[in-house]
Amino acid sequence: MESIRRTKIVDLFKDPQFGSVVDVKGWVRTIRGNKYVNFIHLNDGSTIHNLQIVADVQKFGDDFFKPVTTGACIHVTGTLVESQGKGQSAEIQADTIEVYGTADPETYPLQKKGHSLEFLREIAYLRPRTNTFGAIFRIRHHMSYAIHKYFNDKGFFYFHTPIVTASDAEGAGSMFQVTTLDFNNVPRAEGGQVDYTEDFFGRQTNLTVSGQLEGELGAMALGAIYTFGPTFRAENSNTPRHLAEFWMIEPEVAFYDIHDNMDLAEDFLKYLIRYALEHCKDDIAFLNEMFDKELIERLNFVIANDFVRLTYTEGVQILEKSGHKFEFPVYWGADLQSEHERYLVEKHFKRPVILTDYPKEIKSFYMKQNEDGKTVRGMDVLFPKIGEIIGGSEREADYDKLVNRTKELNMNTDPIWWYMETRKFGTAPHAGFGLGFERLILFITGMANIRDVIPFPRTPNNAEF
Amino acid sequence: MESIRRTKIVDLFKDPQFGSVVDVKGWVRTIRGNKYVNFIHLNDGSTIHNLQIVADVQKFGDDFFKPVTTGACIHVTGTLVESQGKGQSAEIQADTIEVYGTADPETYPLQKKGHSLEFLREIAYLRPRTNTFGAIFRIRHHMSYAIHKYFNDKGFFYFHTPIVTASDAEGAGSMFQVTTLDFNNVPRAEGGQVDYTEDFFGRQTNLTVSGQLEGELGAMALGAIYTFGPTFRAENSNTPRHLAEFWMIEPEVAFYDIHDNMDLAEDFLKYLIRYALEHCKDDIAFLNEMFDKELIERLNFVIANDFVRLTYTEGVQILEKSGHKFEFPVYWGADLQSEHERYLVEKHFKRPVILTDYPKEIKSFYMKQNEDGKTVRGMDVLFPKIGEIIGGSEREADYDKLVNRTKELNMNTDPIWWYMETRKFGTAPHAGFGLGFERLILFITGMANIRDVIPFPRTPNNAEF
Repeated sequence: MESIRRTKIVDLFKDPQFGSVVDVKGWVRTIRGNKYVNFIHLNDGSTIHNLQIVADVQKFGDDFFKPVTTGACIHVTGTLVESQGKGQSAEIQADTIEVYGTADPETYPLQKKGHSLEFLREIAYLRPRTNTFGAIFRIRHHMSYAIHKYFNDKGFFYFHTPIVTASDAEGAGSMFQVTTLDFNNVPRAEGGQVDYTEDFFGRQTNLTVSGQLEGELGAMALGAIYTFGPTFRAENSNTPRHLAEFWMIEPEVAFYDIHDNMDLAEDFLKYLIRYALEHCKDDIAFLNEMFDKELIERLNFVIANDFVRLTYTEGVQILEKSGHKFEFPVYWGADLQSEHERYLVEKHFKRPVILTDYPKEIKSFYMKQNEDGKTVRGMDVLFPKIGEIIGGSEREADYDKLVNRTKELNMNTDPIWWYMETRKFGTAPHAGFGLGFERLILFITGMANIRDVIPFPRTPNNAEF
Repeated sequence: MESIRRTKIVDLFKDPQFGSVVDVKGWVRTIRGNKYVNFIHLNDGSTIHNLQIVADVQKFGDDFFKPVTTGACIHVTGTLVESQGKGQSAEIQADTIEVYGTADPETYPLQKKGHSLEFLREIAYLRPRTNTFGAIFRIRHHMSYAIHKYFNDKGFFYFHTPIVTASDAEGAGSMFQVTTLDFNNVPRAEGGQVDYTEDFFGRQTNLTVSGQLEGELGAMALGAIYTFGPTFRAENSNTPRHLAEFWMIEPEVAFYDIHDNMDLAEDFLKYLIRYALEHCKDDIAFLNEMFDKELIERLNFVIANDFVRLTYTEGVQILEKSGHKFEFPVYWGADLQSEHERYLVEKHFKRPVILTDYPKEIKSFYMKQNEDGKTVRGMDVLFPKIGEIIGGSEREADYDKLVNRTKELNMNTDPIWWYMETRKFGTAPHAGFGLGFERLILFITGMANIRDVIPFPRTPNNAEF
């Protein structure tokens, strides 16, 4: 036989050369047949579509197919022909079949019957082999790439902020400690407290909750930067919306005010959704069919409409006047709950909403203070089904105002002396925001549980795989 | 004045519209002048080139320029004109100058005189504002983007492997522990040992040293994946080549053997170097001029030549016959040192080298075992000046062989049961490698110390910023 190179199934469907001899490799999804012919549905991960392999039982012999069961990995050569059945356009008439690896039907967990998402979470090491998770993780890839492409095309620089840090961007607590100290032999200082000078970094360190503070340092030098990296919260929240380890995108731009920041956020989100609809058509169609019949409609709706922009104060007035019964009370000063955000988006405006100018008490110390003394230049982008998808702000660029705010909050700024100093040396207006990557993937895929949009979720009592 | 939008300096030089009114914002690098005119060199991070602002002293008044010192941030409008001096083609005749932020010359650490790299490391929060680090971090961005683009264009999927893990890919020890336990109140099990069921994840967890094991799970489902994320080593190594936190790229491909793997590694590295030469021309020219006069020549040399491929055994024979005096002895079975690798690359072959088929004793358990019973299908790519830039292998796909090897090594495979199971269910030949991102950036920038190619280096006793 002539020497041929393997073709990925996605390329084979894209441009089928009927009559040519092809070489494919992948995993058996199903095999069925009769005494004359076997039909093998093969998937190689490059697309959600299976390739049908037609194998002559006489030619290979009955016994040959015993190891060719669901989950087995095989190598097939044969002639590409137009498919007789409905669905895919091309199939292969098999010349040779080589079995790379079997999958014992007695023990292989992924049999052809449907499995619950809960069960698949327990076998997260195998779930990327299912249609659903193949689709989700391909979409996850395309969204990652679109994020890098968007910022690269706009002249933003990807800036790697540290994962291990001695500072706490949010002042929020709930951090994971990173240490090489031995619990069985904790070094103690004279006063009896833990002697962190003996720890690897010579001080107490944690996993970062945000790259923003270091990102600002980048923006004040390179002009426009973004981060895209893992962030961590040690919150004991067992909900479909929380992960202990998740990925975040944080652009930060010198000379941007909050209006530029809102423009960027809206343009960015619409770009990503358009990119997904264009590059993940088949995977999104599958998820729309199987999980969320309104998915494609919702995606198209968001890109077709301007986001509504209003202040927190105006938003609260609308909620107060709505007459709607909320579980949590609404009043000026309250931190809005998901039910409030979704009411504004889904019921009142029926469009994505950007709320701005929040009470300073419910926002972080670094947000630019408004003249009114009560509110800050924060902004949250609220999406249907998701609630807050982006949170950001114009930053307080004035050294004295920033110092005063940290004092009001009794913050110890020693660990972030370098952050404070950027306001001393060539300070400038600047703004930025954070997009939780898994929130975005939830929105794009229509999935309901955040554990289903990251390969190996980290949650309380779960660090398997 | 008409309303105009700010232009980035890089765009202004790219397509100067002489005679137009422009709006620029950035940081003052230098200001000099006489009683008639001041020349301000402005940098906004978008390019290494400064824009000259020409300001009429009479017009603004002498006192006006007092706060316009090195490091100050200003906003300038004016007319773009052809430059009279040498160097840049365009300059601005200033109409208005607004000072956003001053930088007290008494305290601003970055005065215009040259600073040592050691000093700049201590003020890592400001060093991106220097020519050198601006150049390095722009190159770092372009290399990150090129990596994503390369794999995306080839149909690889970006696969996010976990940062917090209960497994140890290398079996190497030297990991950072991640915990929410309190050193002052360590929970104890009945036997007196630490009760990790009380820890956040219900077990002992660490920061990952490699995404490979989880990456293989992705490859065995999606076909071809790559990771690009932070990895960690708690080694107490204070050298110019070690970081405790660094970024790694790890492609993993189903159906690849070691030859495919070498082809991928060589093509990938050449693509990245070509991309850098094309997209980072000015920054590389600057670094070539200031730090490493052979940089551009070396980069061109690598893309112009095929990498030499030979086995470890052949490599050791060459070293043994060389007559060269090495600090560390060379013999079959020895782990090659940087001096050996660089001898092969720089002295013997005068080209990049890929060594394969290493003694199994000096390589990891997961590498495919050769028929000889002595060597494994590992491969290291060796570069001039750097030594090993890539390490990889074809993986052992056979369940029994893999189990036997882990037994020889007395490994506890309980924490990686899911990895072992991939060889039970639809196993397939596959291969992959790891590229240390900072090693790549060292090579592309010509810098000598790895702490100078990452924004905020993490090393023993240092987690500042």
